[in-house]
Amino acid sequence: MEFLKSITAEKALEIIESFPVITATETIDIEDALDRILTEDIISNEDIPPFSRSLVDGFAIKVKDTHGAKETAPSFLYLQGEIKIGEVAEITLENGHCIYISTGAMVPQGADGVVMQEYTRRMGDAIEVTKTAYKGENIIFAGEDIKKGNKVLGKGKRLSPFDLGILSALGVSRVPVFKTPVVGLISSGDEIVTIYQTPELGKIRDINRYTISNMLKKEDSIVKFIGIVKDNIGDITEKLVSARECNMILVSGGSSKGERDFITASIEKLGGEIIFHGVNIKPGKPVIFAKLWGKPVFGLPGHPTSCIMVMVRFALPLVRNLKGEYGHEEKWGSGMLTNNIPSTYGIEEYVRVTVKYTDGRYYITPIFAKSSVISSLSDAAGYVVIPEGREGYEKGEEVEVHWFE
Amino acid sequence: MEFLKSITAEKALEIIESFPVITATETIDIEDALDRILTEDIISNEDIPPFSRSLVDGFAIKVKDTHGAKETAPSFLYLQGEIKIGEVAEITLENGHCIYISTGAMVPQGADGVVMQEYTRRMGDAIEVTKTAYKGENIIFAGEDIKKGNKVLGKGKRLSPFDLGILSALGVSRVPVFKTPVVGLISSGDEIVTIYQTPELGKIRDINRYTISNMLKKEDSIVKFIGIVKDNIGDITEKLVSARECNMILVSGGSSKGERDFITASIEKLGGEIIFHGVNIKPGKPVIFAKLWGKPVFGLPGHPTSCIMVMVRFALPLVRNLKGEYGHEEKWGSGMLTNNIPSTYGIEEYVRVTVKYTDGRYYITPIFAKSSVISSLSDAAGYVVIPEGREGYEKGEEVEVHWFE
Repeated sequence: MEFLKSITAEKALEIIESFPVITATETIDIEDALDRILTEDIISNEDIPPFSRSLVDGFAIKVKDTHGAKETAPSFLYLQGEIKIGEVAEITLENGHCIYISTGAMVPQGADGVVMQEYTRRMGDAIEVTKTAYKGENIIFAGEDIKKGNKVLGKGKRLSPFDLGILSALGVSRVPVFKTPVVGLISSGDEIVTIYQTPELGKIRDINRYTISNMLKKEDSIVKFIGIVKDNIGDITEKLVSARECNMILVSGGSSKGERDFITASIEKLGGEIIFHGVNIKPGKPVIFAKLWGKPVFGLPGHPTSCIMVMVRFALPLVRNLKGEYGHEEKWGSGMLTNNIPSTYGIEEYVRVTVKYTDGRYYITPIFAKSSVISSLSDAAGYVVIPEGREGYEKGEEVEVHWFE
Repeated sequence: MEFLKSITAEKALEIIESFPVITATETIDIEDALDRILTEDIISNEDIPPFSRSLVDGFAIKVKDTHGAKETAPSFLYLQGEIKIGEVAEITLENGHCIYISTGAMVPQGADGVVMQEYTRRMGDAIEVTKTAYKGENIIFAGEDIKKGNKVLGKGKRLSPFDLGILSALGVSRVPVFKTPVVGLISSGDEIVTIYQTPELGKIRDINRYTISNMLKKEDSIVKFIGIVKDNIGDITEKLVSARECNMILVSGGSSKGERDFITASIEKLGGEIIFHGVNIKPGKPVIFAKLWGKPVFGLPGHPTSCIMVMVRFALPLVRNLKGEYGHEEKWGSGMLTNNIPSTYGIEEYVRVTVKYTDGRYYITPIFAKSSVISSLSDAAGYVVIPEGREGYEKGEEVEVHWFE
């Protein structure tokens, strides 16, 4: 029986990342744009703020009129009027005067600073200023935030709530985004039944369908579940053909070599090409990556935890490429290992961990469970990567955690 | 003018966390259950796996038959048959025999170990085993993963893709969850116009509506935008009444004291109670928290970054309570500060930061921007908290980052 010709994790990722993807674009309402990906740079058409605004409740002044002012020797300024928020500042500040101004209101002509209310005293129709103001104090000037013509968000940016705040400031209500990729999902295996059935002896319910499809939903892609197939070329090719219009196809299952052989044979029968079969990782070694009708196809391991790790490390990065996303940043943390983690030299190993915070320190505990065990999945906050070139980590070492989700 | 009587951030959070919330429940399909919150513990009705399974492709054996076996002195076992995945193992393993078994297939009666294919040699209708097997090797026993009657997921758990995998393994296709809270959102301020308008001089577009509503969407709550109101009691009370059926109400705006006074007066006019007004934080000090019709109401600061920080630190924890979520874990990271961050003693300060990874180390750089500046929002990966009792952090210190999202 032929052993898998495995490649390194690094090489696998390099192949996956360079897979040529086709993206399509559309323009949508800002209301629907959360987590969608920009197809072009957004350039500001205006200055933000469009006018100089006060950052505090206080008095607009000429800085020179407060020169040398202090608690015991305040400057004395006549109150010239008030500017409310939302109003046009129609009065021009005169020498020796001040104008009451609310936070966010327009700074009047002639003013070059705003003194906070706390540093003033009311004396009839005049104001005592008890501190020396500096030029520009408590003002945000027109265009200080965003200059007209400047790039504010880049192509490939996944739109966060904050990005949508920036777009709304600029009045960008229609947003150019990439179309959401559709991922076809097939569950394979003679042993697999739906969750609505009570499995006969020897059979089990389809777990990977639910983990995979929800991981894809979290990644904002559309999941098209094609169905459960038996381990034979006829069934598998039929379902692959049903997934032909999808942007990517995932076939889960293939725990045994026999099952995997049906998947690779089916892809080849349809004219596809197996790009690699087997990666030096644990868990997840028997992953298949192929090109069929110009589209990426993954054969994912059947064991639930193996399947999840291959999704996280290899399939989701490609989903992000299909989405047109650029510069995705993984969330990480670090803490002290509470146990040794042994690992095999030459294999990149992923160890799920729990994380606890005690006395200002994070403690990371590996979960040692067989890759077919699902009960521990829920406890894992993330995972630790043990590189190929290491034989594990030792208790007490500071290690990095990659967060799940 | 009366100064705000501020409370500490800790006290504010304590008040918010103990606010009495009313939750409702419903039962939904597992297809829709991602990120929903369980209303009850899930107890397994079955053993998982339901039968003992092989973890590898190999040969089911009696461990005693491989005693002392090694490369140079293999055990010699007759091949009794094969068990395929999905089949019932109907044959019973006899002494001195082995049965070929696929990964995931049912382990036959009489076998107490499985030897990987790699440690065997085919000799006609017999097999040489080149290693001594141990009891239970490469088998996951019935109930080893989940025992019938055991709790697998707890009440209040937010359902991750992995949790849904566990539910699917158990055949739980209908899931008892809390109803999703509806949050009413009002934008207040004489200066605010919709993003579809070109603001006249003195006015600006509604930014907070988009940041807040998308932060709420990320937290899986339903947002009901009530509208933009002018700074007067008539308008504000009218919109508050429109939000009466919501589970929580957020009023954004209120940069100036004048604006905030309209909000508190409107809440009180409707019979509500102001619980606190002002927290010793920066940015976000002028936050209002109130109870109206038994429901929580926040008055959020108008400056976009202040508004965001109050959402992250105070409003979203309450949203999670309204959702019935228990044990939410924040994602954090840590790294070295590249700059000093000054801070005022007695104020809990939130400083947005960018994070860069270079040569195996994370570098954290504070973003120094006025709280009305929105352009820097997109760059911030997270924020650093400077506690009340500290006057900042110094360049070179290791600090924790709270991730946004």
